[in-house]
Amino acid sequence: MNLLSALQMRMDNKTKPIGSLGKLESIAIQTGLIQHSLHPVIQKAAILLFAGDHGIAATGLVNPFPQEVTAQMVQNFVQQGAAINVLCHENNILLRVADAGVNADFDPDLPIEHCKIAKGTRNYLHGNAMQLFQVHEAFKTGAELVKQLHAEGCNTLGIGEMGIGNSSSAALMMHQLCGLPLGDCIGMGTGNSTDHLLKKAATLQQVCDFHGLGKRTFSVEELLCSVGGFEIAMMTGAYLEGWKQNMVLVVDGFIATAAVLCAHQINPDILSHCIFAHTSGEKGHAAMLEYLKVKPLLDLNMRLGEGTGAALAIPLIKNAVAILSNMASFQSAGITKND
Amino acid sequence: MNLLSALQMRMDNKTKPIGSLGKLESIAIQTGLIQHSLHPVIQKAAILLFAGDHGIAATGLVNPFPQEVTAQMVQNFVQQGAAINVLCHENNILLRVADAGVNADFDPDLPIEHCKIAKGTRNYLHGNAMQLFQVHEAFKTGAELVKQLHAEGCNTLGIGEMGIGNSSSAALMMHQLCGLPLGDCIGMGTGNSTDHLLKKAATLQQVCDFHGLGKRTFSVEELLCSVGGFEIAMMTGAYLEGWKQNMVLVVDGFIATAAVLCAHQINPDILSHCIFAHTSGEKGHAAMLEYLKVKPLLDLNMRLGEGTGAALAIPLIKNAVAILSNMASFQSAGITKND
Repeated sequence: MNLLSALQMRMDNKTKPIGSLGKLESIAIQTGLIQHSLHPVIQKAAILLFAGDHGIAATGLVNPFPQEVTAQMVQNFVQQGAAINVLCHENNILLRVADAGVNADFDPDLPIEHCKIAKGTRNYLHGNAMQLFQVHEAFKTGAELVKQLHAEGCNTLGIGEMGIGNSSSAALMMHQLCGLPLGDCIGMGTGNSTDHLLKKAATLQQVCDFHGLGKRTFSVEELLCSVGGFEIAMMTGAYLEGWKQNMVLVVDGFIATAAVLCAHQINPDILSHCIFAHTSGEKGHAAMLEYLKVKPLLDLNMRLGEGTGAALAIPLIKNAVAILSNMASFQSAGITKND
Repeated sequence: MNLLSALQMRMDNKTKPIGSLGKLESIAIQTGLIQHSLHPVIQKAAILLFAGDHGIAATGLVNPFPQEVTAQMVQNFVQQGAAINVLCHENNILLRVADAGVNADFDPDLPIEHCKIAKGTRNYLHGNAMQLFQVHEAFKTGAELVKQLHAEGCNTLGIGEMGIGNSSSAALMMHQLCGLPLGDCIGMGTGNSTDHLLKKAATLQQVCDFHGLGKRTFSVEELLCSVGGFEIAMMTGAYLEGWKQNMVLVVDGFIATAAVLCAHQINPDILSHCIFAHTSGEKGHAAMLEYLKVKPLLDLNMRLGEGTGAALAIPLIKNAVAILSNMASFQSAGITKND
């Protein structure tokens, strides 16, 4: 009997009608397949949060919050004041914050991963966001941070981000990779006014025209050079390494899924290791998920990023695996089966 | 400033774009309103699980599992082998099991609440399921069990159930109380075949004809007498008392929501205290929720009962309240606000 059938049989012998725990059952079985085990376990679940700045954000054309907020939020993460800190604390999840490319000089003693590629990308309105060697450096750093977590015993990883302007980068990459109209890819980001949205859309149309997005094929590396972000590139590297290490990859929202789109171009099997945490309230995310043909666990109209959706999904995944491990079977409980 | 505005302002000052935590924000605010507090807390969350048998189940006409499974599952709860045990253990939730009317003699030393009304209802195909004094006894007992939990410090309560045949009772009550066609109210229950579903539907149509359901108005008490279950009547009493004690009431699936329909007839404000945990995979539940004009937190295609949906939602509620309590404000974190 193959592993899938053995996992399914184990689940079907639990004291409940067959299939009655719905997605909890499929997640438990997926986790067993990822871990190549009839007895999957969730160990030292972690969120790895990548922060980076975007050259475009200095213009204010796409972002209601000023660029300096990225660095301020990194300080907030360190001081345990952000939403992701609260959720990780509540749910017993390790949080690790990496400076992928924030436009600030952090005190080297700050308890973050200091792996800055540069102080923000360049403004992609008039040139490339980054250079190819920076993409490669970001892939490598993202992978190294995941290797380190894996070496510490973590087998379940949510990947989050913070970066003023990064919903624009993600929208542009989605437009190119999913082949969807630009307007379907652009959402409010951190804003909430129609004026803001119109300005953002007009600016991103200019960016598309300048780089020829939607007009020809781009390799992932080329696309990241054109309109990517350092945090998105590192997230891509992190997903790819998480797959290699057989980790359960918990995918957060719009920007995180854009990085999955990149990783998916390089390794289509990445999806076998991904559990999609939630459908973000950010416009575009639902279409991204549809493009990948995946259905997430939660739909709470959240659109914050940071890994907050992943932090809410991890307890559900733990619950699912506990069902497989700890529920009685019909035989062990002496319960009559139906016909 | 009224409490709602004060709670909203407190939430809007947290270091995140306004509204970006979606339903977590509305749940935290609802909890503040229920507790009449700017600083809500979730204390000693519990699941109260009512088990009861149904006379109709002895016929096998509506239930693929035999009636004896109700008593076997109570033993399984005591032995910590059921899904609800695993989820309560994982999520640090107290589980209390009450014998509302199981058709078995339990050892008085069994660590359950012994409050059996009778050994199962009578078969409502040919008469009333219970007598009026039994409905009143069930309301009172449900209320007393909730008072006791409240006295122990519990302020957040999920209510679950176990009872072979109880999806039929819930479907009949839904048909009467929501005014929807019987066919829209009947689902698979614990079964999974079309044959089973057809037999169940034909049987329940006979029950409707016998009792005149859908033909005239019934008081809640009258309806419970006709086609109710002891566990459903106790759940109704429990919800009503939870409202009086200002508890957060976490509503599970199809049968639990049928009891909310009953409580709602008696006290329409019950809904202000309810957080609906999930949309069950049981046909009829989505329409019930629509009738009540409520949107649940989760949609995981679960249809097990026992309080399992509530047990998954309680951590989300804890997370929501922690956001309100523990996140930094823009002022305290020194972060620039948007315009």
